[in-house]
Amino acid sequence: MDLHRIGIIGLGLIGGSMGLDLQKQGHEVCGLTHKEETATRAKDRGLAQFISTDPKIIADCSIIILALPLPQLIHPSRDLLDALPTNAVVTDVGSVKKPIIKTWKNLHPNFVAGHPMAGTIQSGVEAGQKDLFVGRPWITTPDDTTNQHALSLVKELATSIGSKCITTDADTHDQAVALVSHLPVFISASLLKAVSNEKNNQLLTLAKKIASSGFADTTRVGGGNPNLGLAMAEYNNSEILNSIHSYRESLNQLEEVIRTQNWQKLEIELQNTKQRRSDFLDLN
Amino acid sequence: MDLHRIGIIGLGLIGGSMGLDLQKQGHEVCGLTHKEETATRAKDRGLAQFISTDPKIIADCSIIILALPLPQLIHPSRDLLDALPTNAVVTDVGSVKKPIIKTWKNLHPNFVAGHPMAGTIQSGVEAGQKDLFVGRPWITTPDDTTNQHALSLVKELATSIGSKCITTDADTHDQAVALVSHLPVFISASLLKAVSNEKNNQLLTLAKKIASSGFADTTRVGGGNPNLGLAMAEYNNSEILNSIHSYRESLNQLEEVIRTQNWQKLEIELQNTKQRRSDFLDLN
Repeated sequence: MDLHRIGIIGLGLIGGSMGLDLQKQGHEVCGLTHKEETATRAKDRGLAQFISTDPKIIADCSIIILALPLPQLIHPSRDLLDALPTNAVVTDVGSVKKPIIKTWKNLHPNFVAGHPMAGTIQSGVEAGQKDLFVGRPWITTPDDTTNQHALSLVKELATSIGSKCITTDADTHDQAVALVSHLPVFISASLLKAVSNEKNNQLLTLAKKIASSGFADTTRVGGGNPNLGLAMAEYNNSEILNSIHSYRESLNQLEEVIRTQNWQKLEIELQNTKQRRSDFLDLN
Repeated sequence: MDLHRIGIIGLGLIGGSMGLDLQKQGHEVCGLTHKEETATRAKDRGLAQFISTDPKIIADCSIIILALPLPQLIHPSRDLLDALPTNAVVTDVGSVKKPIIKTWKNLHPNFVAGHPMAGTIQSGVEAGQKDLFVGRPWITTPDDTTNQHALSLVKELATSIGSKCITTDADTHDQAVALVSHLPVFISASLLKAVSNEKNNQLLTLAKKIASSGFADTTRVGGGNPNLGLAMAEYNNSEILNSIHSYRESLNQLEEVIRTQNWQKLEIELQNTKQRRSDFLDLN
């Protein structure tokens, strides 16, 4: 793709990793951070060529990537909005699209809603790493009002750092992440809560001694960063509630099979779940 | 410990691994397998010094380890029972203790109910490996009728191959494994079932593309061997149903917090689940 001057707002896991990859592609990268301390560390790590806490840093950029947490994407600061060049293409990295589109559709003419997916448990200025996006999905959720040139440019950018571009609508996106990404957090947290609710201390003491890899894996995302879970629940609220509802139906159905001791049916159910997981994760 | 002639019934993951470790300790190990084919392969792998499909192989053993799947522990074959030396100490490896004790308390005078815990996803004659039990719990669940000499010998055996001995009652054992080992399977399977129940194909196609490590981890045990899940549900039935009940309460409580958008409370809940996981898995 043509070389650009690219502004990245926020140099955490996503922004910092993009800074590293985009510099490697030959672009000029300007990073905007909130704190001086972060700016200093980001300079040390080489996350961008130019880094500042002053929004003026992005004045001449033709592409702006908003790599901020959900709350700051949904309630962007006045200073940031004032600093965005009107002619630039602006895209974001938020994991929920409908509330972000609601905020941004009237804020900038060249806004493209995006969600580059890349998970590590790291966060903050130390987290950025090279090649984080290789082979990972980068979803864009344009609508009728999206500038097609801006959309093409974002896809070109995504492809250039190895992402697989996926285009869908914001509704489908938010429902799909609720099902496979947000719901697991609350399922997993509920297991930890069930353990916390247990009153029998002798049982708990033994349970702690024998909790093993199965427990560790099933509870991993429910024992993660509380702020991430909180942001999901707040900004993808109705989709998560729908997913929980559908999940409880499935739990009730399995419980009924166990309660009625219908082993033939349970065997079919467990064969199906095994097959479903293989299909979903391409383990076949 | 003194050297013994030890019989192992079944040379899968647990039995095969014990065979390797116990030979290293200097014991004479006799393995009994169901099929000739397995016996041949077990000989090739050196899982025991003497291996046969004929129950007579265990005639002179002073310790017998029943390393069989739950159904065969709860409904042992006549041939096996007839072959057990009356003076030997007999112990088992079943992951549910009450139904096994119910079966065995009148079958052999020196029976000690045990549960060496060691998880890998492998099974069968190829699965046995050295040092599988090092640092892992080996639970015994004696009652008033248990022969104390036999119990001591089983604990000595467990310690000799690196296990951490835990003694508790069968009730507590079965409830604890229901909570941290069996419940996760059905929670996890329910998530896969919720995905299977989803009717929106566009959503499913996207969900499959974006399902990532969080989904993979949360669904791992629910997408495992159907026979294991089936045996848990059948032989630890009431404890699993109790755990599902308690889990659903927790899920409902979290859902209520999300539905009423009580973010302060949700933050506390998610901080608690994070802390609970760290406590349980000694991550502090």
